[in-house]
Amino acid sequence: MDNAIQMLIDERDIRRLMVHYADRIDANDPVGAADCFTPDGTGIYWGEYRGREAIAARLAEILDAFTVTSHHLSNEAIDVTGDHAVALSYVYAFHRRVSDDSPLHVWARWVDRLERTDEGWRFARREVARVGRISAEAEGPVDFEGHPGRLHRQPGA
Amino acid sequence: MDNAIQMLIDERDIRRLMVHYADRIDANDPVGAADCFTPDGTGIYWGEYRGREAIAARLAEILDAFTVTSHHLSNEAIDVTGDHAVALSYVYAFHRRVSDDSPLHVWARWVDRLERTDEGWRFARREVARVGRISAEAEGPVDFEGHPGRLHRQPGA
Amino acid sequence: MDNAIQMLIDERDIRRLMVHYADRIDANDPVGAADCFTPDGTGIYWGEYRGREAIAARLAEILDAFTVTSHHLSNEAIDVTGDHAVALSYVYAFHRRVSDDSPLHVWARWVDRLERTDEGWRFARREVARVGRISAEAEGPVDFEGHPGRLHRQPGA
Repeated sequence: MDNAIQMLIDERDIRRLMVHYADRIDANDPVGAADCFTPDGTGIYWGEYRGREAIAARLAEILDAFTVTSHHLSNEAIDVTGDHAVALSYVYAFHRRVSDDSPLHVWARWVDRLERTDEGWRFARREVARVGRISAEAEGPVDFEGHPGRLHRQPGA
Repeated sequence: MDNAIQMLIDERDIRRLMVHYADRIDANDPVGAADCFTPDGTGIYWGEYRGREAIAARLAEILDAFTVTSHHLSNEAIDVTGDHAVALSYVYAFHRRVSDDSPLHVWARWVDRLERTDEGWRFARREVARVGRISAEAEGPVDFEGHPGRLHRQPGA
Repeated sequence: MDNAIQMLIDERDIRRLMVHYADRIDANDPVGAADCFTPDGTGIYWGEYRGREAIAARLAEILDAFTVTSHHLSNEAIDVTGDHAVALSYVYAFHRRVSDDSPLHVWARWVDRLERTDEGWRFARREVARVGRISAEAEGPVDFEGHPGRLHRQPGA
């Protein structure tokens, strides 16, 4: 029974890491998102970025194009073996472009390798595989509450 | 280990409460949704509503505008401390308007304070923070199965 | 406490079955999806299909109409009683049509009866109840990574 409990806890902790990553992305916090990786982890975002600094810089570049992002995680399939894990999960992401406020919809998979570290579970490698995208027309202005705690970051920062 | 198990059970029970709330909303059952709050709980729906009766009345008002709603929950980040908890979760909601059958898409966050009560976990405070919305054109008529057990409620009831 | 742990494990296993089913559908693998049913299980896909072979043939027929599908599961409400379970869950599915590459969005519920078997939990009965659909215009060509491991299956195979 103890092994099963450990599995449940590990899967819970890994799911929380994935949720935290999405929260940091949607809070416009590329540094916080990069901290979800191991120090020498690799992020594959249409190009390979190694280490937290390079990942944060790449994520900042992507985030600078949007005023709003909303990454909805689902279908987590997490397989833990000791201090290592692999995971496949689904994400649907809503975006609004800085350029003209137009919406962008993306459907994708996150393909992950994870490691148990002193900080807890971290991504050793995370790759985004897109399966679909729709660009839509801009609508009128909106005045929403927004993602709780969203940061006001200067582009490129 | 017992503390970890209790955490897993509490998080599971809170997730089930959130799922039940969405089920009641999508079943057109504002009274059932309001029962997910503590008796003196507060719902923030563009205005502050206190107590189950006030919350049910407000939810009925909102639901009366739609023939279909579908609230898809994800990204639950639940933190339990004893008999209290805080939670942030994501919701994407599909709607069809009563007026002209046109679709409405909403992306939002649920920001919750919860309490363990004799009835189980309940919302002491639940706030909706929207991050995006898209209104679309109406299409032709549809004839779907619909949400299982959806209630036929008179507007305002 | 042991009963609660068993409940958590059963719910986890059933959620994994649902996730695996979506993975097989989106990998264009109707036979793999049908294996999620008990040997004499029933799938209700606008018509009743009994047994894995009939279910796989029906799923192949549906999948043949799309170049991409992406089934995002959420709101799982799973109730286990011994070796039986019932479940209601939500699904949003993105599709692209073979005919003209145009997107199709579907919002639905999965209504399940499950049984614990020697192979693990399996669907004894799974019914799809749609609550909404939107058909959209085709956009330009796309070149995406796609669902990891998606099969290149001949129509009707």
